[in-house]
Amino acid sequence: MDRDNKVSITVIRRLPKYYRYLGDLLRKGINRISSQQLSKMTGFTASQIRQDLNNFGGFGQQGYGYNVDELYTQLGKILGLDKSYNAVIAGAGNLGQAVANYKGFEDAGFKVLSLFDKNPKLIGLKIRDIEIRDVDEMGDYIRRNNVEIGIITTPKENAQDIAEIYMKSGIKAIWNFAPADLKVSDEIVIENVHLNESLFTLSYFLNNKSDYSRD
Amino acid sequence: MDRDNKVSITVIRRLPKYYRYLGDLLRKGINRISSQQLSKMTGFTASQIRQDLNNFGGFGQQGYGYNVDELYTQLGKILGLDKSYNAVIAGAGNLGQAVANYKGFEDAGFKVLSLFDKNPKLIGLKIRDIEIRDVDEMGDYIRRNNVEIGIITTPKENAQDIAEIYMKSGIKAIWNFAPADLKVSDEIVIENVHLNESLFTLSYFLNNKSDYSRD
Repeated sequence: MDRDNKVSITVIRRLPKYYRYLGDLLRKGINRISSQQLSKMTGFTASQIRQDLNNFGGFGQQGYGYNVDELYTQLGKILGLDKSYNAVIAGAGNLGQAVANYKGFEDAGFKVLSLFDKNPKLIGLKIRDIEIRDVDEMGDYIRRNNVEIGIITTPKENAQDIAEIYMKSGIKAIWNFAPADLKVSDEIVIENVHLNESLFTLSYFLNNKSDYSRD
Repeated sequence: MDRDNKVSITVIRRLPKYYRYLGDLLRKGINRISSQQLSKMTGFTASQIRQDLNNFGGFGQQGYGYNVDELYTQLGKILGLDKSYNAVIAGAGNLGQAVANYKGFEDAGFKVLSLFDKNPKLIGLKIRDIEIRDVDEMGDYIRRNNVEIGIITTPKENAQDIAEIYMKSGIKAIWNFAPADLKVSDEIVIENVHLNESLFTLSYFLNNKSDYSRD
């Protein structure tokens, strides 16, 4: 992979989609696929797909298509899914519990070690085997347990405070579900799940059904 | 708005972001903003922003910037947020309850009328004022209550069955949180929230911190 060649974030956001489709193909025992077939599955054009994957070194051979297993493994490495990560969740309400319960994350190497909340009724409970602890202990816990990923599922009002604790205790990446734009230092990776934006996109299409082209 | 001019889906996905930032500006009492200032807030380039907004008829005047209130109102109309919608949620586990509890949706005109589940322990309970009903009654309920949006927060295995019920009972748009690619007829609008893809994007940036350019 050419480190000098900056890859656009739009391309990167498509990689997990390729990865997911390739995983489906593998499970079906399909081991070779053309960019045309990938185009049918993903809705991206074949030339878009070839261009995207070329950013990371040419997989695939003209006329032979891609080796699914190889491409899946390589994309997994590019996405950092060959490693494992420790994560914690701040906010043990419904959303925090839903994230803690989501088996797919653990299968992909993301292990939630603990949830944190300030509600005394929740502290001490367990979601699967994951304990809910007092948010006052969170910074210490992160430092002692080599936690790299901090998930925020608190209300909007508490999200920035949580982000501050994460930054001070050495968290490297924040996965933010609160509908707030967090201010974090440049070294912190932040990925937002803005559910409102997804809902508004749905609303747009509901009102303008034919008024767009997929790209 | 020129209906013959198909707008790219990438542009449309940016509109909710503009809308959110403009709402923040309005609440701060700011009533005029340049594309340069919007660029600083959103991270998109000023020319990108001008180009995006031109798709929907030129707002803004050269040298004067945009009228925040007017642009916010227009974008709201384009996104269909000047209307109200009835929604139901299939799957009343943690994620379904989290979505039902999310106040932002109702503020934007999306009203959840009922949750549905097959678990007898959940049926009859209420989340806020929203009752959890038996999923066997869902089709009838949708037809009787003019429900347009069906939300899916079931496990992956049940998602396609729910989508079939939604299609048969006249749902117009599906907001899908299950990590499954649903097969729906062309008339149905579908918007997926693929949490795995968001997490994998975070993982990519954690492993390749400087290896991208925002666009």
